[in-house]
Amino acid sequence: MYNQGELKELVDRAIVNLSLSEEAERLSDPVKYILSIGGKRLRPVLALMSCNLFSDKVDEAVIPAIGLEIFHNFTLVHDDIMDQAPVRRSFPTVHVKWNVNQAILSGDVMAFIANDCFLQTPPSQIQKVFKTYNRAAIDVCIGQQLDMDFEKASMVTHSEYLRMIELKTAVLIAASAKIGALIGEAGEKDSDHLFEFGMNLGMAFQIQDDLLDVYGDSNVFGKVSGGDIVSNKKTFLLVKALELATGKQLKKLREQLKQKDPNPEVKIKTVMEIYDDLNIRSITEDLANDFISKSLDHLWSTEPDHERKSELTQFASSLVGRKK
Amino acid sequence: MYNQGELKELVDRAIVNLSLSEEAERLSDPVKYILSIGGKRLRPVLALMSCNLFSDKVDEAVIPAIGLEIFHNFTLVHDDIMDQAPVRRSFPTVHVKWNVNQAILSGDVMAFIANDCFLQTPPSQIQKVFKTYNRAAIDVCIGQQLDMDFEKASMVTHSEYLRMIELKTAVLIAASAKIGALIGEAGEKDSDHLFEFGMNLGMAFQIQDDLLDVYGDSNVFGKVSGGDIVSNKKTFLLVKALELATGKQLKKLREQLKQKDPNPEVKIKTVMEIYDDLNIRSITEDLANDFISKSLDHLWSTEPDHERKSELTQFASSLVGRKK
Repeated sequence: MYNQGELKELVDRAIVNLSLSEEAERLSDPVKYILSIGGKRLRPVLALMSCNLFSDKVDEAVIPAIGLEIFHNFTLVHDDIMDQAPVRRSFPTVHVKWNVNQAILSGDVMAFIANDCFLQTPPSQIQKVFKTYNRAAIDVCIGQQLDMDFEKASMVTHSEYLRMIELKTAVLIAASAKIGALIGEAGEKDSDHLFEFGMNLGMAFQIQDDLLDVYGDSNVFGKVSGGDIVSNKKTFLLVKALELATGKQLKKLREQLKQKDPNPEVKIKTVMEIYDDLNIRSITEDLANDFISKSLDHLWSTEPDHERKSELTQFASSLVGRKK
Repeated sequence: MYNQGELKELVDRAIVNLSLSEEAERLSDPVKYILSIGGKRLRPVLALMSCNLFSDKVDEAVIPAIGLEIFHNFTLVHDDIMDQAPVRRSFPTVHVKWNVNQAILSGDVMAFIANDCFLQTPPSQIQKVFKTYNRAAIDVCIGQQLDMDFEKASMVTHSEYLRMIELKTAVLIAASAKIGALIGEAGEKDSDHLFEFGMNLGMAFQIQDDLLDVYGDSNVFGKVSGGDIVSNKKTFLLVKALELATGKQLKKLREQLKQKDPNPEVKIKTVMEIYDDLNIRSITEDLANDFISKSLDHLWSTEPDHERKSELTQFASSLVGRKK
């Protein structure tokens, strides 16, 4: 069996070797750029680990796996336009480095480069794999729509929030795990377990991301702590706090959200005090841990013997124990 | 066999019956809108006619065929953002009716709805069909890139221009014809003939489009005559005129292109006079007719008997005889 580091190397090498049309360099330069500025390669590595759980031949899964990474980066390029984000992984975003039109078009072509990768799935699995991928791709678009809608909504419930991150983040992680399992020729039951493993893991991952913005170490995490608070981003923490707060607390929280041009440090401190009073941190940590347990339950319900599962178990635990 | 009108009805009905996720109406409303404001359904109808050339069962081709239409409309939504076009088929464009972010995201989801359609291709043909489609989709992106690059280029040769429209327009028409043939279980040779039939037809179609802007009847064509001249659009006519013009004529033509805020009527008249002197209209018409002849040669080289080809022959001739 391969370990996580070895699989990441396989993924990185396949991405570097990706052959892109040379007829229009302006089109492919942003594609190479966004794929080269780092990233954890979470989705393709998970796909390969899931494949490796059932089969020793992971080679056949490498190209479909990088299809997942290319799709994910396509969504980042377009989301960054929509969010007017200047920075991604400490580098200028594509629409800033080039321009919006270039970011639209180079993003678009990535969706079809991803298709090309999935078309290289072994014939026996291609339809199941492609359907799993494409269902997830549509869900990611719906999730991004809900996220955009939420930005304008005055109130979002925590269950609406969880549905949004399920679609925007978790389904693609679920699909990654299932696609790996399918190419590893897992049975239907086990492939479905891997899907649920990935789904719950993805939920935990996103909730952890929300936590890290506030309670993470900014040097390690690579973002300024509290950025989500300053920008009024509807995270699980804020959505939950707005549900739980009453009376003076609710008034104070709403005032912070309404302030134009607030002092960032004061705003972060004030909101964090409200979070502390409402026990938001431990509520959120408990929820993330619940998702991780469910995730591991699904992993442990699959047929392969215990030893083969250690790499994925470690991967799941490390995602939630992560500091970045 | 079906006639063109019957096939268009099949296509229109399938588009109306397309099931879209109801979870995010804001996402699917623009999709329904762009698919409902008309259009000739050229690509899916061509796919069905090509299928029908080889087989009496066109039902299996209907959903993949509308995948072609959905992909085409996806490119229109995104191209209209890039071109800042306010109007499409006499209706407001998606980014004007909604906004740019919505047009990006609703466009994106159409790429995956198109995938869904191709995933419904009969299993025996799915890989060939999907590869044919996806190669064309990547080419269309490259073509759009070249088109954008040309807008900024000081000089474009007529062969560069022809390569651009081959990628941006003709390959998808070629792919449509080939995909129909594949689902109709045509042999490899005949499928390739259908590809070349569509490719040459697509070239003629785009060159005809350039001609119609200048020499078409504006009431029938639905655009103001000469719009391309006013906007300095690099059409075949302009590219060829810039290649052929010398001395005073070239100077005069370049002056027209440089003018800021020209009087549209004067500009159109002046440029058309230069076109007349250089014989641009008949050079362009001859080129379109050459492509049509090549196109029909490929059609006539296929195995089915003469009678089965009459519908496609008529379709090809009508495209170039068209007034809109």
